[in-house]
Amino acid sequence: MVITFLSDFGVEDDFAGTCHGVIKRIAPEVDVIDITHGIQPTSILQGSVVLASTLPYMPTGVHLAIVDPDVGTPRRALIVRTADDRLLVGPDNGLLVPAAERLGGIAAANEITNREYALEPIAPTFHGRDIFAPAAAHLALGLDPTDLGAAVEPDSLVRHAYPQPEIGTRRIRAKCLYVDRFGNIQLNLTASDVEPLGIVPGTRVEVELPVDRFYAQAARTFADARPGDIILYEDAYQNIALAISRGNAAQTFGVYAGTEVRLRAD
Amino acid sequence: MVITFLSDFGVEDDFAGTCHGVIKRIAPEVDVIDITHGIQPTSILQGSVVLASTLPYMPTGVHLAIVDPDVGTPRRALIVRTADDRLLVGPDNGLLVPAAERLGGIAAANEITNREYALEPIAPTFHGRDIFAPAAAHLALGLDPTDLGAAVEPDSLVRHAYPQPEIGTRRIRAKCLYVDRFGNIQLNLTASDVEPLGIVPGTRVEVELPVDRFYAQAARTFADARPGDIILYEDAYQNIALAISRGNAAQTFGVYAGTEVRLRAD
Amino acid sequence: MVITFLSDFGVEDDFAGTCHGVIKRIAPEVDVIDITHGIQPTSILQGSVVLASTLPYMPTGVHLAIVDPDVGTPRRALIVRTADDRLLVGPDNGLLVPAAERLGGIAAANEITNREYALEPIAPTFHGRDIFAPAAAHLALGLDPTDLGAAVEPDSLVRHAYPQPEIGTRRIRAKCLYVDRFGNIQLNLTASDVEPLGIVPGTRVEVELPVDRFYAQAARTFADARPGDIILYEDAYQNIALAISRGNAAQTFGVYAGTEVRLRAD
Repeated sequence: MVITFLSDFGVEDDFAGTCHGVIKRIAPEVDVIDITHGIQPTSILQGSVVLASTLPYMPTGVHLAIVDPDVGTPRRALIVRTADDRLLVGPDNGLLVPAAERLGGIAAANEITNREYALEPIAPTFHGRDIFAPAAAHLALGLDPTDLGAAVEPDSLVRHAYPQPEIGTRRIRAKCLYVDRFGNIQLNLTASDVEPLGIVPGTRVEVELPVDRFYAQAARTFADARPGDIILYEDAYQNIALAISRGNAAQTFGVYAGTEVRLRAD
Repeated sequence: MVITFLSDFGVEDDFAGTCHGVIKRIAPEVDVIDITHGIQPTSILQGSVVLASTLPYMPTGVHLAIVDPDVGTPRRALIVRTADDRLLVGPDNGLLVPAAERLGGIAAANEITNREYALEPIAPTFHGRDIFAPAAAHLALGLDPTDLGAAVEPDSLVRHAYPQPEIGTRRIRAKCLYVDRFGNIQLNLTASDVEPLGIVPGTRVEVELPVDRFYAQAARTFADARPGDIILYEDAYQNIALAISRGNAAQTFGVYAGTEVRLRAD
Repeated sequence: MVITFLSDFGVEDDFAGTCHGVIKRIAPEVDVIDITHGIQPTSILQGSVVLASTLPYMPTGVHLAIVDPDVGTPRRALIVRTADDRLLVGPDNGLLVPAAERLGGIAAANEITNREYALEPIAPTFHGRDIFAPAAAHLALGLDPTDLGAAVEPDSLVRHAYPQPEIGTRRIRAKCLYVDRFGNIQLNLTASDVEPLGIVPGTRVEVELPVDRFYAQAARTFADARPGDIILYEDAYQNIALAISRGNAAQTFGVYAGTEVRLRAD
């Protein structure tokens, strides 16, 4: 059985490693795949986007996800069963819902309340270690979600607001969702948002940032551009992104998560 | 069998990955759990604190720990058997002792001197790869510590100075042990240090830093504070820490490992 | 079977984790060892040096390496069989060649062209996920390289230029290959380059940087120097490096990959 694991814990500290230890004490034979622990601290939005993008590439199993700024409050701890029979485990703050919807929808949801499977005492600041990791491990061993707590209405799950772009006939007002290691700027847009404006590979697009304005080349891939060219492309997860071929667009333009990005078909 | 692995190697370089390779060549079936490789370079203090905090959450096995600023000097290489039958492997510089004491005490210690189990030639700057990782792998396969070298007196092990706080009747002079990814400031204090001064959840505490002074709320968890509030709380490893709810306290106040932090009950 | 994995993907994003997921879906029993994902973005030179240095410490298996600035162009995807029967998988940009040469030479090479084993649709910006990781997984399961594509001439493989030092009778003009976490400066030199000039442990060496000049001590290890001393030493992979004992040389001197470093025997 496989547990995948995504969080905003980083790898500088022991948080992710400690959860690995907790899992392995309970389920020594389980295989844990770290999707990433590099989600920006407390960014439920980035966590939910990355989880939804990557789970289709993961083996079916238990999918632990922890971005939990409200740890210690009465926010619920959840197990979500998807229509394709994966079990998602994490806080009820919107982190899990987009992934579940991408995987066929929510088939069932349970609140984790049974302390029999938790580590005691439960630290009010680290439910990852004391509640979520043990729950994931026991589920991987075959425990039924109902043994961890009662069913809850899928409609009652918290949804996290996804920033909607404003799409006009010639202009789009978008936002940077997050920046990756290569400085590529992920936007809250898909090809179906930009194509109606005529923004397709080969065209030129005016880009306006809070403190900069320039033209980008709509392209299929970096290979269609020369080093230093600014390109707008559909990334490997079908999101529209802005990049500099062989350069770092986010650093060059001072863009970070949340920055407004306006596009205009030329 | 499990090997856990903690170091200051980081993950940007190959150091940790190379030790994984060395272990797997010797013991292909062993499961390696990375606790963290993010210990600040050469910080024996942080390494020893994190190792002692996390080992209770790890499966019993061989516990490799490498923070080794004196690599290449005659400092000894050690195997420490704890009272609860774990084997700790690392340099004799104080890194292992607090963890062993947390786990029931040192039952036995051996110096690693037998080169038969080392990789030759031994690089004078990377004993992690050439001495410690092979030793851990062979121990995980069942080798007896005495086969790696002679027993040494537990009392002869190097102890690393833990910075003791100065605790008065109304004031405490503490130190930042280290800062985590969320900017939370770990202090060299436990609840039993601060409670006698009346610092308990619900009270207000004056905090004095080298270049700042403010009030913090003693709280049980982040949930007891509003975003932006400064809180003093017992963290998940029973250490007292200073944080900003939904913010980064260390960055905001310019605190890093070693910074003096004074507390006064209000 | 083992797959080792090196890339410039970092660990902040999901790129490396997603490739793990892809591999595990195809080959659940395979063991994946991360050498590092910290290669500087697009640095084929650093990737090739680290791969060649570390593979001798890895179990024999499939060795996936991805530093791929030309992803999406017609650059070839390769499987290289080494004389010691390892299979290297990665782009044809010079990344794999030094490792293959270190491991006895290239016994055979195949281009990966068979899309039957790729993930469809192949994203033009993430061949790691859609081509290389699946190829590595299938090879680990025993697929023959010829099933992935036709043999290509070893001589036709792209070689990446390794920056050659200029070595005179008293002076050497070298370059920083990369900087590690500890701030140690890796040079494009080996002991056999510097010894003829009399630069051996115990001697003093004048070091000239673009904006600094100082003396370093040629030393066998950090232990031969006092904290703060500047030393020139042979590192654990037999490269000559420049360091400050207990300090960060690269930060102190403002050196990064590509900086020119001149040495003169004193």
